[in-house]
Formats: sequence, structure tokens, C-alpha cells
Amino acid sequence: MSRVVKLAVIPGDGIGPEVVAEAEKVLEAATAASDVTFEKTPFSLGAGRFLDTGDTLIDDDLAAIAQHDAILLGAVGGVPGDPRLKDANIERGLLLKLRFELDHYVNLRPSKLYPGAAGPLADPGDIDFVVVREGTEGPYVGNGGAIRRGTPQEVANETSVNTAFGVERVVRYAFALAERRRRKLTLVHKTNVLVHAGGMWKRIVDAVASEHPGVDVDYLHVDAATIFLVTNPSRFDVIVTDNLFGDILTDLAGAVTGGIGLAASGNINPDGAFPSMFEPVHGSAPDIAGTQKADPTAAILSVALLLDHLGLGDEAARVTRAVEDDIAARDATPRTTAQIGDAIAGRVRA
Amino acid sequence: MSRVVKLAVIPGDGIGPEVVAEAEKVLEAATAASDVTFEKTPFSLGAGRFLDTGDTLIDDDLAAIAQHDAILLGAVGGVPGDPRLKDANIERGLLLKLRFELDHYVNLRPSKLYPGAAGPLADPGDIDFVVVREGTEGPYVGNGGAIRRGTPQEVANETSVNTAFGVERVVRYAFALAERRRRKLTLVHKTNVLVHAGGMWKRIVDAVASEHPGVDVDYLHVDAATIFLVTNPSRFDVIVTDNLFGDILTDLAGAVTGGIGLAASGNINPDGAFPSMFEPVHGSAPDIAGTQKADPTAAILSVALLLDHLGLGDEAARVTRAVEDDIAARDATPRTTAQIGDAIAGRVRA
Ligand SMILES: CC(C)[C@H](C(=O)O)[C@@H](O)C(=O)O
Ligand SMILES: CC(C)[C@H](C(=O)O)[C@@H](O)C(=O)O
Repeated sequence: MSRVVKLAVIPGDGIGPEVVAEAEKVLEAATAASDVTFEKTPFSLGAGRFLDTGDTLIDDDLAAIAQHDAILLGAVGGVPGDPRLKDANIERGLLLKLRFELDHYVNLRPSKLYPGAAGPLADPGDIDFVVVREGTEGPYVGNGGAIRRGTPQEVANETSVNTAFGVERVVRYAFALAERRRRKLTLVHKTNVLVHAGGMWKRIVDAVASEHPGVDVDYLHVDAATIFLVTNPSRFDVIVTDNLFGDILTDLAGAVTGGIGLAASGNINPDGAFPSMFEPVHGSAPDIAGTQKADPTAAILSVALLLDHLGLGDEAARVTRAVEDDIAARDATPRTTAQIGDAIAGRVRA
Repeated sequence: MSRVVKLAVIPGDGIGPEVVAEAEKVLEAATAASDVTFEKTPFSLGAGRFLDTGDTLIDDDLAAIAQHDAILLGAVGGVPGDPRLKDANIERGLLLKLRFELDHYVNLRPSKLYPGAAGPLADPGDIDFVVVREGTEGPYVGNGGAIRRGTPQEVANETSVNTAFGVERVVRYAFALAERRRRKLTLVHKTNVLVHAGGMWKRIVDAVASEHPGVDVDYLHVDAATIFLVTNPSRFDVIVTDNLFGDILTDLAGAVTGGIGLAASGNINPDGAFPSMFEPVHGSAPDIAGTQKADPTAAILSVALLLDHLGLGDEAARVTRAVEDDIAARDATPRTTAQIGDAIAGRVRA
């Protein structure tokens, strides 16, 4: 009864390959004793590929990736200000294109302050919440344009597009998640200013809430939410929010829980029509690429999300526990990327 | 050579009237010995007025307010969820209408961690920066709409409108401010996603930067900026950003510098064509209205911004110093809103 999982691996740019190597080690360790085997296909995509070939993500890549059961991604993006990348928007052309084309409508970003992890807050309390960020709509749709570009009369617009279809499905996912957690759901938006989009989000949350009487629902404007993230982060359990607000809140959440070196994410297509994609929240950090200074923990925790998504809950739990133990044991001694990966893989095997 | 300043006073809702009363006390104390007299006109506007009359901000109010030299505002907004306010958007219809109609294109929000103020960061360092938030464009323009409202086929859009005219004038203001401060300017946007609006902001900042070779300019994506606000806030001097990002960053900045009970703001029309408006960043907090629990410090610091704007730099400095001294002397003894106002007014007079 062995099961084969086809995994597309996109190491990407900068520290991407280094952290993905450790994530693969841990994946291997976590599933060595199981009857699951991973059939991995590497995809060379990112700024590097663009510089070599001029391509960002061509249809053939996309079609090939879509044949897989899941995707593990490191980080993409070249050196900021590289003139050769001036007109290449790797983020839009690759990362966002994958999220949109593979209908990753749930961008799942857990935030947990692990014992031993040092965040910037003096008195953080227990932090353990999940941001369910919408992944396929909002200001991310690429529906913008400019006229009279480069002149004093330029007008540049960006349109946030939101649909009841898109909002309802992610809101339903968030409520289901809240039911499995502490049964608290917070909608974050800016309804007093973005009255149409915000109004629709609010109405849909209220409607779905009536089907979940056991879930305690509240609402915060995005500005107020950032205040609570630093003054009372333990008030949150599940946050559901739009694509842009989710982007902002999860970087901040990563910072308050010890840095985005620890923040994992899943870009999920819950329907299973397309492979879901797991990636650290951090970027490619080209300034430290190749130095073995990157912390692979976020990539490793993304493997835990991947395992969970594949229904391998026990294996996922072993990875998370190994990371927790590793973080609790951390001291000031510097370790290389590989040393951290080896240590965590060792704990998973133990 | 006495000078008369016509001041429109909008106490507003909730704690607004309480904090404005203290701000007026301090204004009085700061200018008692000067040759400036304030001719004050109160305007009864806000949720209360709406409930009484059905009006939010009628043309006559606006015309009357525009006849003044400056505006002092407390806070507006009724009790959240009040069914009688369901279709009234006091924020849009009053606060944002004032900002837009009076062309308050600079929303100036200083963030300073005063000695003695307790913020949530374990190791905050020296925090002293100013956010120059664009006030008349971006996602705040009200250019949204929905079709098939309330149905499963609803589509709700919000358009962020940005003009070279609008961006250039606020960017110039920010550079001029940086020249008078520590000569560091950070543009915050999301150029990798909002490529048209972000691209225009970036090009305009780069162009104006060439006229200010002494100012050190950098760029951060909004998500990364929130990380730095909690891990290294002293890296900032002047931040220039769009209306929505500025809203988010300044609430977070308020939190890290000891709470929005201390955060002041000016909605400025630098051209002087319209009166500028000074207000605390906090809201009307109806839950504690009338209890004398509100901290009037943000309203009082808004008076310092007002004095500064009127060219009364010495008086402004006396208010700021009095607030600094008061904060440094704070202990756990609770004080009423009026006691804090009296204490600060007393220090101003001393
Ligand atoms: C790289 C960028 C396009 C991306 C985003 O904005 O979603 C990143 O910040 C993230 O959060 O994954
Ligand atoms: C009340 C609201 C419309 C307002 C804003 O979003 O600008 C407030 O949050 C602020 O920052 O002054």
C-alpha cells in the first residue's frame, strides 16, 4: 500500500536553494519510515532563469508543475536594483502567477511564538493564531494601469477586484479552521473606507457566521489590527482577511513571533484541482545567499504544512515537534543553514 | 500688533469633547502671554449631529469651516453596531470629506517615544520619525462600486487613484521635512504588486531625490516596513507613503511609541488655500466616553502641531516640552482626563 507523492521543487533564487535543501532533508527524515515516497522534480525558476533565458514562467513550466501533487518553493527574486531585472517583475510573473493560475485561494500563515524564540515584544503572552489570507483577488489581481506615464499629468490606478464567490470560499475555509481551533474568528478589513469591498466581506462573514454559532466572530479595521498584533497578540485565533491586508499582517506577525526566519506558509487550493504550494514567508535575501547564514526553519515548517495538507498529520506533527525542540534548545552559538537542518532532521528521526 | 486666529473647533463624538476641552486649555495656556488671540467657533458635527438631524457635513458647514484659519478636531464616530448609524458612514461623510474638500494632502504623523512612555517593545531604541501620509488620493478616493450586491454573483471593486500631481507635492513636502531633520527619507509602497501606482511613486521619489543630494533615500515594501517598525524603528526619520499604507503604519507606530493615546496628527494644506486640521490619531472610543478615562495627550500634542503650523514655534515647543515632562513624571496613579490636561497646562504656564 505504498503511496507516491509527486512533488515539484522550486528552489528559486538567493537563499532559496539553501533553505530548500534543508527542508528536503527533513521531509526525507519525516517520511523515511512511512509508506509514502516523494517523487521530486526540480524546476529551475526565478531571477536566475530569467537572466539566462529571458523567461519567467512559461506555459510549459506551468503545465508541468500542475501535474504534481504539491509544490515546495524556496524564495524567488534577484538582487534589488539589478538593472538587468528592471523590467522583469519576478514576483508578479512567477510567484503571483503560480498562486493565481493554480487557484491558491487560501494563503495559510500560522503564527506561533515557540518557547525560546525571541521576539521584539517585552510581554508577548501566548501567541498562536493563523492568518487565512485570500490569495487570488483584491489589489493583487493586476488590474491597474497608467496614462501619460512619466509626465506631470500621469494618472496611475490600481483596482482591487473582489467577488462573493472568492470571498465566500475563503471565509468558509477560515470558519472550518476556527471550528478545529479555539473557535474565534476575526475579520480584518477597512470597511469604513473601502465600503464596497469591505461591505461585501462583512456581509459574507456575517452570513457564514450564522452557520457556525459556536464560533465567536469579531471585526477589526486593519490599522487597529496592527495595534493588537503588538499589544495583545494572544487575542487572535483565526484571522481572515484580503490579499493585501494579509500580506502586511503576516509579515508583522512573523516579526512578533521571532522573525520571518520562522514563518511558514501554504498556498492552498482546498478543492484539490491544482497542487498546493508551500513556501517560507521570507524572501530570497540575495545579500546572504551562499553564505549558509539563512535560517531554514521557515522552509522546514512549510514542510510540516505540506505534510499536513497531504493528510500525513503524524509526520507533520513530528516535524513541528522537532522544530519546537530545536528552537527551545537554541543559544547564541551560530549555526550554518545545514547545521540547523541536520539538527532538526536528527530530532525528527529520533 | 495683535494677531487673531480664527479656529474652528469640532469636538465630535465619544471622548472627543473631553480631550478637546483639555487641548483648548493647553492652547490657552500656551498663548496667554503672546499677542495671538484665538477666536473659536464650535461646530457640532459627528454621529450625534447625524442622529439629531440626519446631516453629516452639509455645504453650509463646510463653507463656514473653510472661513477659518485652522481646525481642531477631537474624534468622530458613533457606537459600533448602532443600528441607527447603519447607513451613515460618519468617517467618509465627515472626516474624509473634510480632508478631501479642504485639500489636506499632507497627513503629518510624528512618532516619538518619549522618555517614560511605555511601549510594547522590549528594546525600542530611540524612536523619532514622522510619517508623511498622502491625504487626498489612493484607495481613499471613494472610487469603488459593486454589482449584483448581496447575491452570490456580487463583484465589489475599489480603485486606488494616484496622480503625478498629487504624489509629487507630498513627496516634495517630505523631502523638505527630511532636510530639516536627520536627512533620511524612506518611501513605503508595494511596488512589486501595485506596479503602476507604486512605479509612479518610485519614479517621482527618485526624481525629487536628485534635487536633494544630501538626503539619504531608501525604499521598503509596506510588509517589510511593518517588520522594521517593531524590530528597528530607529532606522526611520521621514517616511513618505500613500493614504492607506500611511493609515496602517501610523497606528502601528502609535502603538510602538506608547499607544495611540499619545499620537497626534495634522491634516495639512501647505499651500494655505484651506485651513489645516489637527486631530489625535485615536478614535472616539464611545465605550469610555464621559468617564474622564481618556488620555488627552494626543489632542494636546495636536495643538503643538497646530501652533507650529501657525508659525508659533516657541509656543509649540513649550507645549511639547510640557507633555514630555508630564510623561516622564507619570506613575501608576490614575488621573482623569481633566487632571492630565490641567497638569500639562500648568507646566506650559510655568
Ligand atoms: C513577493 C511578494 C509578491 C509576496 C506578496 O506580496 O504576497 C510576499 O510579500 C509574500 O507575502 O509572499
Ligand atoms: C476613521 C478613518 C477613516 C481614519 C482613516 O482611515 O484615515 C483613521 O483611521 C485615521 O487614521 O485617521
